[in-house]
Amino acid sequence: MAKKTGRYAFAFEKNIYIAGYGNIAGKKEGQGPLGGLFDRIEPDLYCGRKTMEQAEVRMQQTALENALRRAGIGREELDLVGAGDLLNQCISSAYSFRDSDVPYIGLYGACSTMALSTLIAALSIEAGVAKTAAAFTSSHFGTAERQYRFPLEYGGQRQPAAQHTVTAAGAVILHEKKSPVRLAGGAFGSIQDLGVTDSSNMGGAMAPAALRLILDYLRETATSPADYDLILTGDLGAIGAEIVVDLAARNGVNLHSNYQDCGLLIYDRQKQDMHAGGSGCGCSAAVLTACVLPRIIEGTLKEVLFLSTGALMSPLSVMQGESIPAIAHLIHLKGERE
Amino acid sequence: MAKKTGRYAFAFEKNIYIAGYGNIAGKKEGQGPLGGLFDRIEPDLYCGRKTMEQAEVRMQQTALENALRRAGIGREELDLVGAGDLLNQCISSAYSFRDSDVPYIGLYGACSTMALSTLIAALSIEAGVAKTAAAFTSSHFGTAERQYRFPLEYGGQRQPAAQHTVTAAGAVILHEKKSPVRLAGGAFGSIQDLGVTDSSNMGGAMAPAALRLILDYLRETATSPADYDLILTGDLGAIGAEIVVDLAARNGVNLHSNYQDCGLLIYDRQKQDMHAGGSGCGCSAAVLTACVLPRIIEGTLKEVLFLSTGALMSPLSVMQGESIPAIAHLIHLKGERE
Repeated sequence: MAKKTGRYAFAFEKNIYIAGYGNIAGKKEGQGPLGGLFDRIEPDLYCGRKTMEQAEVRMQQTALENALRRAGIGREELDLVGAGDLLNQCISSAYSFRDSDVPYIGLYGACSTMALSTLIAALSIEAGVAKTAAAFTSSHFGTAERQYRFPLEYGGQRQPAAQHTVTAAGAVILHEKKSPVRLAGGAFGSIQDLGVTDSSNMGGAMAPAALRLILDYLRETATSPADYDLILTGDLGAIGAEIVVDLAARNGVNLHSNYQDCGLLIYDRQKQDMHAGGSGCGCSAAVLTACVLPRIIEGTLKEVLFLSTGALMSPLSVMQGESIPAIAHLIHLKGERE
Repeated sequence: MAKKTGRYAFAFEKNIYIAGYGNIAGKKEGQGPLGGLFDRIEPDLYCGRKTMEQAEVRMQQTALENALRRAGIGREELDLVGAGDLLNQCISSAYSFRDSDVPYIGLYGACSTMALSTLIAALSIEAGVAKTAAAFTSSHFGTAERQYRFPLEYGGQRQPAAQHTVTAAGAVILHEKKSPVRLAGGAFGSIQDLGVTDSSNMGGAMAPAALRLILDYLRETATSPADYDLILTGDLGAIGAEIVVDLAARNGVNLHSNYQDCGLLIYDRQKQDMHAGGSGCGCSAAVLTACVLPRIIEGTLKEVLFLSTGALMSPLSVMQGESIPAIAHLIHLKGERE
């Protein structure tokens, strides 16, 4: 039974390991600083399909296939999956997994989905409902832009605080067999809404949720940033990440040395003209599976706090003048090489 | 640790009980056969708010308040909630719970959300991540119609197979203290898609998922319909329910005597001109909390299988010619009066 050490933080009793991980990324992500690390670069926004939505489905399937291959198991050996995405009614996830007889938990956490789905998969193992469970998510620049903002053909001018939706998918497989990366614990966050109404500044809207969960998790586990090799948020981008570091410092927590944000790692913002950085469920999913897990496996990282953050508004709620509720979820990864 | 008896079915090891339950329903639901059973009837589709979306938020909050009152606890005593709804980006749930410091798991299971969220809340207790957890969901005729079909003002003619989205919200609170209703076990379903493309016939699209999970659960637990006082599906309506009973019979399972569907219970289809019956997350949530749980508590029901079913398409995926993936989740409720 998991051990709770506070309102949010818990440690799993079982030894839950990352059995496999996989990803796929789009052309712009392939041209970024992490381009050489992805399992595959897909240059075509349509992946050869009729619609970009079908392309996103295909990317999820590819990421999961890569994860299953690394884990050395077939899809039918999964006992449970947790998945979600940004599209209305989470269609990418439902369609990518509809030809399977594996119990499916549909999640909506916006860009927090990679941490959320991984926690749900781990929870199912801890509770005894699964022995092997998968988590996956995706985002796609074309499908997200036209749903949340404007059709690509419109060619709208982007605001400086805007982030670019990452075209990518990522998947992890969890089980109890000894592997080099252990999922030691984590925390489900609560919804934070400090009144930001500018949907072009998602990093600013999400920063309070990330900050709050980092501070609570450190306090509840009696640890400090120095105890971790990396504290990584999902897609706060330039503005959100600066807010987190600043406000953490005001709370006596120094994040200057080992804090990073996936939205700032995935693109070269200047050369690629990416404004405040990357966003989307696929951003943290791709960085986790292409960059973080391999570095833990090779031993260059040992203790990692990985948070994905999500903005829970809809285009309709923004048009109705509502502010943007945000959430973060956290997983604690530990390198355990022999 | 939960005991799995097959691919889908599991029984909780802990004694997890329904500590409280609550609901609220709209005017048409109040005029239906169950009208006298709801905690409150809200005659105004706007609940006195500026938008129907805000009204749906208010209904979720009211259902949760009623559940907390019955459980005799405050919202801050919750360790975790699982919630979701039908609206894009699940805004009803995120906005209804944004002013809280309780860990939040956002779910998307379409109309399967009541069973899904209840299972997630129970899973968190079984895994030791929560002692007291809540699950809630809602649907609203006005918000759903305009998102999935047409604005109400359009006055579109409905097809005979169409179901009416129920305006209602329901909530349950789970804990380990002895109460008259125990959540003995359940099953997360897998996605089933048999190729139905008619989004006016959601019952037909969802029936295979419900049928499959009922048959699998009975087989995996070595039980038969006679072992239950009630097997209740969420919102299959007239067409879906008939399919389930027919196909179950062809599989040697007789559902004629104790099977019912929430979508057929909530309205008087003839008098209220409700075509194939009710649908929406709020349908099974309201029937569970207004009708099923009270009857288990008073002793007229003892063993109940409650399934919510969801159709996981979006208006966009239907316009793109995709068929409708569907899912069901199941909870097994047991009356345990002293």
